[in-house]
Amino acid sequence: MLRARQWLYLALEVQKGGAWATFLNHFLMVLVVANVVAVVVESEHAIYEAYAPFFEWFEVCSVAIFTLEYVLRAWICVESEHIAFQHPMRGRIRYLLSPMALVDLVAVLPFYLSLFFGLVDLRVLRSLRLLRLLKLTRYSHSLALLLAVLRQEADNLISALFILCMLVLLSATGIYLVEGHIQPDKFGSIPRALWWSAVTVATVGYGDVVPVTLVGKVFSGTIIITGIAIAALPAAILASGMINELKRRRESFRFELVRAMENGKL
Amino acid sequence: MLRARQWLYLALEVQKGGAWATFLNHFLMVLVVANVVAVVVESEHAIYEAYAPFFEWFEVCSVAIFTLEYVLRAWICVESEHIAFQHPMRGRIRYLLSPMALVDLVAVLPFYLSLFFGLVDLRVLRSLRLLRLLKLTRYSHSLALLLAVLRQEADNLISALFILCMLVLLSATGIYLVEGHIQPDKFGSIPRALWWSAVTVATVGYGDVVPVTLVGKVFSGTIIITGIAIAALPAAILASGMINELKRRRESFRFELVRAMENGKL
Amino acid sequence: MLRARQWLYLALEVQKGGAWATFLNHFLMVLVVANVVAVVVESEHAIYEAYAPFFEWFEVCSVAIFTLEYVLRAWICVESEHIAFQHPMRGRIRYLLSPMALVDLVAVLPFYLSLFFGLVDLRVLRSLRLLRLLKLTRYSHSLALLLAVLRQEADNLISALFILCMLVLLSATGIYLVEGHIQPDKFGSIPRALWWSAVTVATVGYGDVVPVTLVGKVFSGTIIITGIAIAALPAAILASGMINELKRRRESFRFELVRAMENGKL
Amino acid sequence: MLRARQWLYLALEVQKGGAWATFLNHFLMVLVVANVVAVVVESEHAIYEAYAPFFEWFEVCSVAIFTLEYVLRAWICVESEHIAFQHPMRGRIRYLLSPMALVDLVAVLPFYLSLFFGLVDLRVLRSLRLLRLLKLTRYSHSLALLLAVLRQEADNLISALFILCMLVLLSATGIYLVEGHIQPDKFGSIPRALWWSAVTVATVGYGDVVPVTLVGKVFSGTIIITGIAIAALPAAILASGMINELKRRRESFRFELVRAMENGKL
Repeated sequence: MLRARQWLYLALEVQKGGAWATFLNHFLMVLVVANVVAVVVESEHAIYEAYAPFFEWFEVCSVAIFTLEYVLRAWICVESEHIAFQHPMRGRIRYLLSPMALVDLVAVLPFYLSLFFGLVDLRVLRSLRLLRLLKLTRYSHSLALLLAVLRQEADNLISALFILCMLVLLSATGIYLVEGHIQPDKFGSIPRALWWSAVTVATVGYGDVVPVTLVGKVFSGTIIITGIAIAALPAAILASGMINELKRRRESFRFELVRAMENGKL
Repeated sequence: MLRARQWLYLALEVQKGGAWATFLNHFLMVLVVANVVAVVVESEHAIYEAYAPFFEWFEVCSVAIFTLEYVLRAWICVESEHIAFQHPMRGRIRYLLSPMALVDLVAVLPFYLSLFFGLVDLRVLRSLRLLRLLKLTRYSHSLALLLAVLRQEADNLISALFILCMLVLLSATGIYLVEGHIQPDKFGSIPRALWWSAVTVATVGYGDVVPVTLVGKVFSGTIIITGIAIAALPAAILASGMINELKRRRESFRFELVRAMENGKL
Repeated sequence: MLRARQWLYLALEVQKGGAWATFLNHFLMVLVVANVVAVVVESEHAIYEAYAPFFEWFEVCSVAIFTLEYVLRAWICVESEHIAFQHPMRGRIRYLLSPMALVDLVAVLPFYLSLFFGLVDLRVLRSLRLLRLLKLTRYSHSLALLLAVLRQEADNLISALFILCMLVLLSATGIYLVEGHIQPDKFGSIPRALWWSAVTVATVGYGDVVPVTLVGKVFSGTIIITGIAIAALPAAILASGMINELKRRRESFRFELVRAMENGKL
Repeated sequence: MLRARQWLYLALEVQKGGAWATFLNHFLMVLVVANVVAVVVESEHAIYEAYAPFFEWFEVCSVAIFTLEYVLRAWICVESEHIAFQHPMRGRIRYLLSPMALVDLVAVLPFYLSLFFGLVDLRVLRSLRLLRLLKLTRYSHSLALLLAVLRQEADNLISALFILCMLVLLSATGIYLVEGHIQPDKFGSIPRALWWSAVTVATVGYGDVVPVTLVGKVFSGTIIITGIAIAALPAAILASGMINELKRRRESFRFELVRAMENGKL
């Protein structure tokens, strides 16, 4: 029993343990992707009508497997190297509150909720299954790196988006003052003008709303050119965060190496 | 009295001092956001008509609070650690001319101006209240960092926008020479063509003005591809400025740390 | 014979050896560009009809020259400084499996395949000739640098594109839930909504599909602003990769320099 | 005479020498800007008709002043600190071939050419006067820095644009194969499809040409998402170039400082 737990821990969490462990992990990855494909495809009404039983059966199977996975991971977590997870009771609770365990919970919870309450909008419920995609982050080191950078720079990114939102708000106010009386249905109030200014500052530019007067065009032109500098902030933040994170990892790796050499382990 | 001033200084400027200080700061932040929401919402004519008294009352209350805040901050500024602000008279004048105090002034001044002169366009006046958003910069370290980087790189950013404007001007001239006689209302002169070229170089691309001849398309294609390299300048400037600023802060922090250790304070 | 092989090796692979070697390389580069121009131009049906014999003759000549080049490069590769390529048999096989040799093979293979099997769609076959453009990478150091950075950061870039695809998928799902019943032909299912969300998140913004309801616009606005932060990931990855690669090259160059000085060669 | 030359050198080239020197430089800057404004404004036919004599007179005066400036700069260049410019004859020729002198020449040459030959298209000739804008680069350090970075990274930028052009070409070919028979006037040949693919890859997205079939949309979606990674290359190149250039300048400044201190000058 304990050896099975140890093997499962290596297979599921460390992703080592021979061909069967590899197969297990690949199977789980494929299942997640298949689930996402199913959500996307069954949203096409005609297809869902034609294959409804199959989709229902596939959903039940998937939830069963993901629930089993969730329970198994909670069982094996005490094998972890981290001392925090090794206590049978408190360690397991700590594990169940970790981000990855919560992602696993979110992947199955909506199904059980709808089973017991049955009141939710079915379309919303089905779409929630897309969050199972988050389970894939377990399998990619570079994805984990990017998410770490995004999380570390979250403060700066939010500030950059705040500055961007201020620019959007100010340009919406400007165009409302300048062209509000010319195109009242599009620029007649700040909330209406916000759509145009968000689409413009982000350089999406659908073209469904466009200034037509000379003053409006001069104002928009200024906003558009200024916007390039402001919209470049997130790229700058992420680049600097990326460089720092990679440097930090290199240095901590070098530190580990030196310590290992001093201890004579290498 | 003096202890009240000290407590207020800690609460308002250092944002420390227990639950009441936290409550005070959060109240001011919420008030600023509520003001901005009010400006945005009341620009919708129908809504303003329906709730005019409420909006007027809310504005008067907000101005009263912001004026009180302005006066209090001027009163407590002598508690500052900076020696420049500690003199009762000259210190206060220096504080009143600092950027944050000016932002606070701009937040209430339009109201009093319209009260005494009453001649301003009401719509412009109301929109000016959006500048109260700037009061929020007091509460975010990362926002202050970004604004510092933007201010430090202002010279380079302006030069980058100048190069961008040159590209816009040259491409407007080019399309005017190439398609001026085909679409005279859109490309018939350089000022008219500027709208298209600004929208294109910034990669907004509304699609309301588009070249139609072969030569025009070849010329635009070249401009579009070249434009990617030029439009990347601000991102490059900000990334390099960000990295330098963070390095400078880390080094100055390390310097302070070393000095504190040498002085035996740590 | 051997001296001819040596000269050819210097001329073709090291791109040294006097005026004739320069001429040879320039001729090959011009031929590649002329081939690409021919593919582009002959896709215009009217032009192909008018000059069909010329295009056919040009193709046969080009393939003949590229085949000769392929054979010659396989013959001379044993002159290489790399010990791996110096064995007459195994060295040549190793060379033929190297990326540059495969590019050369791809440049001529489709022609021979169509000659012997004759069943392929002619338009697809002709378009495959565009891959001859890859032969130019041999002649540019900075192109090789960029490709090295792209290859080195491939993992991170794929992860960034994966995050981007998740955002595209989630925004498609959102707009399908919000506007699916308003514009059923455009947002009636997730696959249909994907077109709009890809075009929006990448800030292309054609404007052929645009949300029309208030909720739809608020949702899109949020996605658009958030999208700026996510779409900045590749720029951040490439910038950090570029800086690291240049640093690595500088350090390896300095290392070589120091070693050369210690050996008294400099 | 010699003292006048020395004063003029300080005033024009080093931009020092009291109020008159500052006035002189500001006058020249304003004149350049006024020239550009004149070119832009007079391209509007109605305005030119109304004020033709004024525009002609302004142009003659400007050319006179710029010619005088050109001659004066050639006269004073021997005062330079660079030994290369100090020889009365060879130094002056060297100066006249320097980039800044060529820019000054280009600013006046078209006028004299049209005077003596009179055959050029007047509209093109007038537009050439926009190049006088380049004279402003003399007055901005950060503009000079950006242009230095652009020049230094020119090789890498051209390679990035080459990769971008390859992506444009491949996506044009793809859409031509996929939708060529559906929208023959837009995608019927590679040259026609190039307009769409350039507009798409650069994320401009006018929306005048849009794929309509499912396969076309899937193909475009892939190109759009991939394009984000490729279009980020110039930003990465410029960011890395900017960081290196600033580092180089800091180090060379530190080196000068150390040398000055060792020599006891500081």
